[in-house]
Amino acid sequence: MYSGTLDKQLEEWLAEDIGSGDLTSEALLPPEAVTCGIIHAKDTGVLCGMEAARKVFAKVDPRLEFKALAKDGDLLEPGTLIAEVSGCARSVLMGERLALNLLQHLSGIATRTKKLADLAKPYGTRVVDTRKTTPGLRCLEKYAVRTGGGHNHRLGLYDAILIKDNHIAVAGGVKEALARAKAYASHMTKIEIEVESLAQAKEALEGGADVIMLDNMAPETMKECVRMINHRAVVEASGGIDEHNLAAAAAAGVDVISIGALTHSVKALDISLDVGEIK
Amino acid sequence: MYSGTLDKQLEEWLAEDIGSGDLTSEALLPPEAVTCGIIHAKDTGVLCGMEAARKVFAKVDPRLEFKALAKDGDLLEPGTLIAEVSGCARSVLMGERLALNLLQHLSGIATRTKKLADLAKPYGTRVVDTRKTTPGLRCLEKYAVRTGGGHNHRLGLYDAILIKDNHIAVAGGVKEALARAKAYASHMTKIEIEVESLAQAKEALEGGADVIMLDNMAPETMKECVRMINHRAVVEASGGIDEHNLAAAAAAGVDVISIGALTHSVKALDISLDVGEIK
Amino acid sequence: MYSGTLDKQLEEWLAEDIGSGDLTSEALLPPEAVTCGIIHAKDTGVLCGMEAARKVFAKVDPRLEFKALAKDGDLLEPGTLIAEVSGCARSVLMGERLALNLLQHLSGIATRTKKLADLAKPYGTRVVDTRKTTPGLRCLEKYAVRTGGGHNHRLGLYDAILIKDNHIAVAGGVKEALARAKAYASHMTKIEIEVESLAQAKEALEGGADVIMLDNMAPETMKECVRMINHRAVVEASGGIDEHNLAAAAAAGVDVISIGALTHSVKALDISLDVGEIK
Amino acid sequence: MYSGTLDKQLEEWLAEDIGSGDLTSEALLPPEAVTCGIIHAKDTGVLCGMEAARKVFAKVDPRLEFKALAKDGDLLEPGTLIAEVSGCARSVLMGERLALNLLQHLSGIATRTKKLADLAKPYGTRVVDTRKTTPGLRCLEKYAVRTGGGHNHRLGLYDAILIKDNHIAVAGGVKEALARAKAYASHMTKIEIEVESLAQAKEALEGGADVIMLDNMAPETMKECVRMINHRAVVEASGGIDEHNLAAAAAAGVDVISIGALTHSVKALDISLDVGEIK
Amino acid sequence: MYSGTLDKQLEEWLAEDIGSGDLTSEALLPPEAVTCGIIHAKDTGVLCGMEAARKVFAKVDPRLEFKALAKDGDLLEPGTLIAEVSGCARSVLMGERLALNLLQHLSGIATRTKKLADLAKPYGTRVVDTRKTTPGLRCLEKYAVRTGGGHNHRLGLYDAILIKDNHIAVAGGVKEALARAKAYASHMTKIEIEVESLAQAKEALEGGADVIMLDNMAPETMKECVRMINHRAVVEASGGIDEHNLAAAAAAGVDVISIGALTHSVKALDISLDVGEIK
Amino acid sequence: MYSGTLDKQLEEWLAEDIGSGDLTSEALLPPEAVTCGIIHAKDTGVLCGMEAARKVFAKVDPRLEFKALAKDGDLLEPGTLIAEVSGCARSVLMGERLALNLLQHLSGIATRTKKLADLAKPYGTRVVDTRKTTPGLRCLEKYAVRTGGGHNHRLGLYDAILIKDNHIAVAGGVKEALARAKAYASHMTKIEIEVESLAQAKEALEGGADVIMLDNMAPETMKECVRMINHRAVVEASGGIDEHNLAAAAAAGVDVISIGALTHSVKALDISLDVGEIK
Repeated sequence: MYSGTLDKQLEEWLAEDIGSGDLTSEALLPPEAVTCGIIHAKDTGVLCGMEAARKVFAKVDPRLEFKALAKDGDLLEPGTLIAEVSGCARSVLMGERLALNLLQHLSGIATRTKKLADLAKPYGTRVVDTRKTTPGLRCLEKYAVRTGGGHNHRLGLYDAILIKDNHIAVAGGVKEALARAKAYASHMTKIEIEVESLAQAKEALEGGADVIMLDNMAPETMKECVRMINHRAVVEASGGIDEHNLAAAAAAGVDVISIGALTHSVKALDISLDVGEIK
Repeated sequence: MYSGTLDKQLEEWLAEDIGSGDLTSEALLPPEAVTCGIIHAKDTGVLCGMEAARKVFAKVDPRLEFKALAKDGDLLEPGTLIAEVSGCARSVLMGERLALNLLQHLSGIATRTKKLADLAKPYGTRVVDTRKTTPGLRCLEKYAVRTGGGHNHRLGLYDAILIKDNHIAVAGGVKEALARAKAYASHMTKIEIEVESLAQAKEALEGGADVIMLDNMAPETMKECVRMINHRAVVEASGGIDEHNLAAAAAAGVDVISIGALTHSVKALDISLDVGEIK
Repeated sequence: MYSGTLDKQLEEWLAEDIGSGDLTSEALLPPEAVTCGIIHAKDTGVLCGMEAARKVFAKVDPRLEFKALAKDGDLLEPGTLIAEVSGCARSVLMGERLALNLLQHLSGIATRTKKLADLAKPYGTRVVDTRKTTPGLRCLEKYAVRTGGGHNHRLGLYDAILIKDNHIAVAGGVKEALARAKAYASHMTKIEIEVESLAQAKEALEGGADVIMLDNMAPETMKECVRMINHRAVVEASGGIDEHNLAAAAAAGVDVISIGALTHSVKALDISLDVGEIK
Repeated sequence: MYSGTLDKQLEEWLAEDIGSGDLTSEALLPPEAVTCGIIHAKDTGVLCGMEAARKVFAKVDPRLEFKALAKDGDLLEPGTLIAEVSGCARSVLMGERLALNLLQHLSGIATRTKKLADLAKPYGTRVVDTRKTTPGLRCLEKYAVRTGGGHNHRLGLYDAILIKDNHIAVAGGVKEALARAKAYASHMTKIEIEVESLAQAKEALEGGADVIMLDNMAPETMKECVRMINHRAVVEASGGIDEHNLAAAAAAGVDVISIGALTHSVKALDISLDVGEIK
Repeated sequence: MYSGTLDKQLEEWLAEDIGSGDLTSEALLPPEAVTCGIIHAKDTGVLCGMEAARKVFAKVDPRLEFKALAKDGDLLEPGTLIAEVSGCARSVLMGERLALNLLQHLSGIATRTKKLADLAKPYGTRVVDTRKTTPGLRCLEKYAVRTGGGHNHRLGLYDAILIKDNHIAVAGGVKEALARAKAYASHMTKIEIEVESLAQAKEALEGGADVIMLDNMAPETMKECVRMINHRAVVEASGGIDEHNLAAAAAAGVDVISIGALTHSVKALDISLDVGEIK
Repeated sequence: MYSGTLDKQLEEWLAEDIGSGDLTSEALLPPEAVTCGIIHAKDTGVLCGMEAARKVFAKVDPRLEFKALAKDGDLLEPGTLIAEVSGCARSVLMGERLALNLLQHLSGIATRTKKLADLAKPYGTRVVDTRKTTPGLRCLEKYAVRTGGGHNHRLGLYDAILIKDNHIAVAGGVKEALARAKAYASHMTKIEIEVESLAQAKEALEGGADVIMLDNMAPETMKECVRMINHRAVVEASGGIDEHNLAAAAAAGVDVISIGALTHSVKALDISLDVGEIK
């Protein structure tokens, strides 16, 4: 992401938490008090969000020193040290919550993604995200998916075409829909189409789809589609896939499995900041 | 929330998803095509986010008609109809994803909160949130907590004082910390202090704390604190409380139980939009 | 205040004054010309706004050197030196007006506040502001009030409850209004109620108000209320109090006196910048 | 002012006051309660700010009905009705404070300006403002000055040239400074120069200044300058002019008198909103 | 484009032109004066920008009536009527310049594109734009290209991969570069590579490029590449192509010709607004 | 221009091009790879935009080193070196396009302006721009005009008065229009009026116009007007003046010639960045 865009978001998020000031620190900590905070893991997972965390503290106070002790993608165990942030105690406390909220959320995504991507790996299958992201966090969440070993689906409505059943109905069939999409789309844009049967998949292939999405298909039907398509288009499986049924889908030979829960149902990874003695 | 602030956020979130345009609809749907979409539940839970959803569609296209069929706080079953949105098909599809992402996320929070608040209710205990919210969504998430029958903790660092062990150490003791906080704080600001033992709780009470937070205490110790405090301050329990141990904490007689997971680990409630025939 | 919010405001305010450029300096000063400006007081009062002034010059030109010779809260006499700012002459002149406008306005507030707070001090009474602040400047103005020895009332509609006669009428009485407020409010939110008689004050106390506002009461009635309340709630006097009648209100024993004129009718303190020789 | 700019400011100012919501109204007023508020004067002065006030309520809630009973420039007496605003009670209360803060501040400026402009009128002299305005409010305050019968000086550093002693010193004299300014300036830009003596005024006239500012001059010297300039340039008097000495300056024959206090030391005009019965 | 983004830009652009107000109209036109302006062509070309023009007037004053007499893509002759805008005369004049600046610029692009696209049409070749757009106007300019019968290249650095010689050098060859790009890229992202010879084109094809860009190639070499590639990848010609040499490139059989001048060297189409009688 | 305003624009423009990231560099360049890019001219013209270009790279990555080898106003020949930018290769490539788009556009304007200003110079006539600028770029484009040896007309509707035929008609004549304008305008604002005949020019002069615009007049009539006005007002010629007829207008003795095409029909100057070896 262009870093200026993240900068602007972090400023809004700090304002959301700090507002007109940290009353507690103003009341109790002398402005000159210093401390050193240690960010560390309290659970097992994949670290993600270090750049954002570093920036949070730099925005609160450019004189804080942030020393990374781990990097995005690292495996964390309870007790793994992640970073040290030292300087003005008021500033450390003002940045703490936002930095942790980001690290916990993004590491939560990376951790879940890694679990699923590891299941898919033996089959050479990619695990990808969807547009079911938290409003305002899409860029960061898609980065967390990559950090966990996943890949990304399209960024939004603007960078790729995904034809669904409604569009097909309006166009009057799979081939007609694909023809119209090709006529309209940039030569730099990929076209994906959602199909529900082997017959539709065949039409999609003949229509020249770049990517064919098998929507909520049984593994058996997936397998037939994969065989029929035979690498002439990318094959994506979608719909209700999780830890329990991912291997079956991957074994069916699809290239890509898309999973909304990667970003819409995130369990924060437990990461904490211990403020050292304040002097 | 002042509605202008939500408006601005919705505009940024729509831009995040739509960017330079919905390529698929531009390619396949005539601008004059119309449809009616039905938003409905696919799981059991508490609805939250209707105002935001309504605004999403109004921002995409003020001529869309949004008809609410349920309201925030309503119990949803699979199949419950939530809203109908009708008008220009391109517009319905452009608003769909953001509206659903918001409804699913907020209803997920309301649903989890209700489960916990229902467990606490027989004891007259409140379930409240924390500052562990998703960056940018604090206001909406705190609203979702209220919608689920919970209450809110402070909004941020700016509207209440919460004294933790580090602050106490710097001030040189519980009483000194409370004295400083009272001297600094507005007469309109409440002061809470975190304690770890009955002895500290006693000091906090004598120091005139408005709220005393029992941090990670065993139910037995909580009970003693509650008895000692005897309604002369609000008592809050905090730390690792969930469905399994909430009743024990509530039974100890605390007034308030704060739970970070209400907002940091959200499972989206399954809500979907069926686009009707496009004509 | 979170400093990023002030930064954004200063940028807007500089744009308001500088717009597409300082025509006079562009026409007459070589870009390499340097100077040293001295900011000094021309009247007696309390200094406020140094951090904002420092930032103004840093935003115009990060290479300017700003040397503070006094700090917020200092007493100024005509001739007291406040700061030196040296470097590019064009930059000094571009920042001058905004820096002075802020210093003059905030020092004006701090000066007036100090006069009133000094009158209240012997009685142990606090002088506080209201929501009658200049649009866009609330945070800075509330800071100026604190700098002058005053305290703040609530920040806005969002951080405390203040029940007025209309609310009481709708609720059907003081006690019912307080009961509803307590049921709704966070346990971290204080509740204040406006009363107009001793009888109402009694009801307010029994209803559990945290703060009782005596609205436009005669000193005698105030005294009765104070005696009756007897430290079981904070007592605030409000309505038309100024230098002439403040002592009487304070002597009545109220804890807090709120004064809108602190921020709605500000006389700028005369502060000036002398540009030294430009070379 | 382009109305979109004011719109954006009003949104920020509402957010400053309302933040995450009006706790008191949420707790005590049913969402469907309605009322009618009457805005009226409690002091004597000149009304200013009706368009801003109208917009405040429209932004809070477009369904509120705002009925103006007076218009900008009208003379107010205690009791004069200014406007009625009716509709949702919560909305009326959310807009009340900002609308009044604006009306009181701007009417305060218009009132003071009118007093001074009335003193100047018999002499055909204009009273104008300066750049000593409240940060963020320059446009509105300059409008208030016009509403009170005054005129405006330049908008900022970008729309006119004002040469002061420092610039003259760098350029090496009045004529050289004017020559450089003319060479640089657009043919659409006026050039003013500050002079401190008759001799300098003569040089300024010969150099072709459009406007000559007599800085802190005694009325006698002003008179000589005016006679010498003889309508070949606009003559402006500046420096410490108020109710006491304005007539003398005007009588000296200057065209324009600029007064910083019009905007830097504003006494709010007392304007109030009475909320009617809430039903 | 998501319309909220355009709205925000139009507001900034109106502020750029109108600033603190239209002095001329304020001085000379009564607020209640009305008029009707006719927008019409004074040259031959393709109309583009009607939606933006309509919005400009609506933003200045929602009560203006804008009646479109032509639509984007229409061929204009000198005298062709484009739109009528009627209502408050001050409002019509405030919107005039921005509306015309947009119409002239976008129609200029559409007109030039149409000329080039018409030359390419007989060969079935697409004319596309580049990233050489005017800062801030990319979305609108890319729309103008489509309106003129052209197509778009990628939107920016974020939606497609374009591998140039530097990237190839770092990767250690065409195939290695393509392999890395495929491993990194989303399955929804197209990969283009720039080649300078038939040999490189062959490597690119074998490496699985989706699009092969022939950079500054002679028509003869282009032809060989086209024959060799044989529809197994999209072929794009780039570099110094204009009205004079486009047919040769198209005749060589390339699928796409990209032309920076479509957007970096725009000749405004002469479009004018005649203000009717003001009453 | 106040630099903070340009900063904000550059951030928006970088976001426009980079969006969620430079896919190609992320795929192919190691984050630690460095390079040195050389910006150089490929055509003859006047350089403009160095400060903006420098800032683009600083915003992308503050650690990039930007070394200017030429400055605004310098004459460029094919091959002239303009700047070197060295550091992280990904950063150089992310800034490249925006920096070049700005340099090419602004240098294009400066180059064209210089051609026309050189033609006017022997006559002592100024060449100036109009309000026909690219939306969002007015400040930069007006700077480019000055860089090319031209001057600026008014900045917008807010900083000068320009009375056209419609205004005259409403006012009931040239003199009445001028009288109203003078009564309304600040004493710091110039007043220009458009005339179409010698008779009107005479009225304009008698009415006290500061600037008289001769609209689409034949050189002979211009000459008569110039003679009649005889330096008592500034004379501006406007309407369809370009390289072919500029000398005739200048020879007629007008002071100023305004030309919309300077900014509405810009031919980019060919400037390029050669990325050196990436290591």
